[in-house]
Amino acid sequence: MTNVSIIGIGQTEVGEHWDVSLRHLAWYAIEAALDDAATTSIDAIYVGNMLAGDLSAQDHLGALIADFSGLRGADAVTVEAAEASGGAAMRQAVLAVQSGLVETALAVGVEKVTDGAGSGLVKAVSTGLDADYEAVHGQTVAGVAALMMRRYLHEYGLELSDFAGFSVNAHANGADNPIAMFRNRLKAERFADAPPVATPVTLFDMAPLGDGAAAVIVTRSDRADDMTPKPVRVVGSALVTGTIGLHDRQDPLWLEAAARSAQKALAMAQLTPDDIDLFEVHDGFTILAALSLEAAGFAARGQGWQLARDGEIGRNGRIPISTFGGLKARGNPLGATGLYQIVEVARQLRAEAGACQIEGARIGMAQNLGGNGGTAVTHILQASRF
Amino acid sequence: MTNVSIIGIGQTEVGEHWDVSLRHLAWYAIEAALDDAATTSIDAIYVGNMLAGDLSAQDHLGALIADFSGLRGADAVTVEAAEASGGAAMRQAVLAVQSGLVETALAVGVEKVTDGAGSGLVKAVSTGLDADYEAVHGQTVAGVAALMMRRYLHEYGLELSDFAGFSVNAHANGADNPIAMFRNRLKAERFADAPPVATPVTLFDMAPLGDGAAAVIVTRSDRADDMTPKPVRVVGSALVTGTIGLHDRQDPLWLEAAARSAQKALAMAQLTPDDIDLFEVHDGFTILAALSLEAAGFAARGQGWQLARDGEIGRNGRIPISTFGGLKARGNPLGATGLYQIVEVARQLRAEAGACQIEGARIGMAQNLGGNGGTAVTHILQASRF
Repeated sequence: MTNVSIIGIGQTEVGEHWDVSLRHLAWYAIEAALDDAATTSIDAIYVGNMLAGDLSAQDHLGALIADFSGLRGADAVTVEAAEASGGAAMRQAVLAVQSGLVETALAVGVEKVTDGAGSGLVKAVSTGLDADYEAVHGQTVAGVAALMMRRYLHEYGLELSDFAGFSVNAHANGADNPIAMFRNRLKAERFADAPPVATPVTLFDMAPLGDGAAAVIVTRSDRADDMTPKPVRVVGSALVTGTIGLHDRQDPLWLEAAARSAQKALAMAQLTPDDIDLFEVHDGFTILAALSLEAAGFAARGQGWQLARDGEIGRNGRIPISTFGGLKARGNPLGATGLYQIVEVARQLRAEAGACQIEGARIGMAQNLGGNGGTAVTHILQASRF
Repeated sequence: MTNVSIIGIGQTEVGEHWDVSLRHLAWYAIEAALDDAATTSIDAIYVGNMLAGDLSAQDHLGALIADFSGLRGADAVTVEAAEASGGAAMRQAVLAVQSGLVETALAVGVEKVTDGAGSGLVKAVSTGLDADYEAVHGQTVAGVAALMMRRYLHEYGLELSDFAGFSVNAHANGADNPIAMFRNRLKAERFADAPPVATPVTLFDMAPLGDGAAAVIVTRSDRADDMTPKPVRVVGSALVTGTIGLHDRQDPLWLEAAARSAQKALAMAQLTPDDIDLFEVHDGFTILAALSLEAAGFAARGQGWQLARDGEIGRNGRIPISTFGGLKARGNPLGATGLYQIVEVARQLRAEAGACQIEGARIGMAQNLGGNGGTAVTHILQASRF
């Protein structure tokens, strides 16, 4: 367990924010988090972002966002780990507060993918793969997921439609989330008719990229208990890297980094998967959702998809996932995604999830992946006294 | 004072490494640092890098470099703060160890600018400026330095040649540094004849960009004292942001972030500028060297240049700077620069600086700037028992 608690959360709608700049987007989430925490005293800022340098010709987001948010002077840097940048920024905020050298830290994830529309967004996202061994050959993130999914279908004798439950669940939850990118429900029978992206991955397997920002404020737990009626304790935190290149993984169907980061976070929290009330999973692709459930210990190998088939990932299931729509329906703003997940778990534990509420949720896990599992960040949060 | 000490350092030659990939470059520095520390047990890696996404189409360096260096599984992310990325990575390593959640951390700065040769390197470096208010108008890092320098010359009635001492000193020291990018000495009378870059800034005011990597391993001081005969204590560490846009600074000749980060680091170490035996300054431009000396308290306002004129920045001067050549002669590998500075201070304090040695050096300061002062990271190191 850490000595760190969440005292403020904020997020923007995920979508196509053509008329909002990168810095404004970040500020909207920060403003909401500052309001929520009822503080303006922030010592350090960790910006989770993947592509602003490529898409917006803007690096140096720490100073930029600190200044624009009225927090000039703060210790502020960008933290990047491909699509896991948001979770990695949260991890740095936790380490900073735990160090005692930083009293209050803000982790903000922001991504402005519309700045790259028409100018190679797919290529930009591929920078999270291995440039010299994958991307150089034209491999994409969806292409890697397709290889994993085809192998899984082969290995376990499944069909594409066996994955429908993941997207149906995500869209059912997203429909109740006012800030979700897609609020339409999805019928299982329509799932297999979706246009292909990288066979067997289709449009309904794959999360949409969107603009968005989410922010989380953390401080020492003893201060948090005085500052807010509903502090959320960070009881587990672990970032583990693995191999980016799929060709170099010992087993393409085992997310080694995801498994190890979940194990480390659970050990730190002295918990087991049975103790987890909800799991914000990195469902950038349905195959990643299935493999993540297996890696984290919620299903045996080859059986992650069965949790979706059997309705066990729904609100009243054994392990609810993607409770606000997940990457699939809430949307995937890349470097911001990991912080949306933290905000969502915190909302569940504060019993402020509205129609998306998991009844009685007291312990939640969030896991953010980069490069289809090359990096995995797991956080476990616990309602601390309410 | 922190509870953190340096147990290993490593660096590569700075220059044009056309035949070495980004990951190899990082590995060479990491290998040297692991050898120096006589350990292969690294829990976390902080990669200081500014432009790999832009220039090498490679983000996600944490996982990439951990895996390639035989450190697969390590907690590893990229830390970016423009040209201050290296110092910022060092700062994260210090926070991580200080937190107690990470036992041994490695900060590695790496930049491969030759990957961007001919394809807009100047534009890529401009991503450290404010994209919407500076770079969009064609402003460059050298252009901003030129505005600062012109104002300084005007304000204090100086000429370009009054800055010669900075470059003469840097090249004199670089000539004795086997891994420096430029080992030629520079005559003061040739200084003013250099080709203009952005008037009044000339080629001899401006540090050359180069490829390079530098690495530093830190752990708890109590462990360090058992692991190495020459641990170097991190007694001060501070990262402060200011305004990136020059137009928005209250005073274009006052590096607010640099001043505050120096003050914070000194206060943490319970030291004053008089206690500092050498200062690795961010001399990306001669004007930045002058302003940094003023901001850190080594000279009164408007008098930083006099330290160069009077020879006070030389090896036997009052405050030796750029003791291995600084950015100007050792070279400026952007996101790696801040870690070269840390390696250099550590070498001085370990009395392993060879011909570059400052006699009797016991306390050294390193300051790394991003975006011409938008971010400033200051570290103060102390020889702990030798």
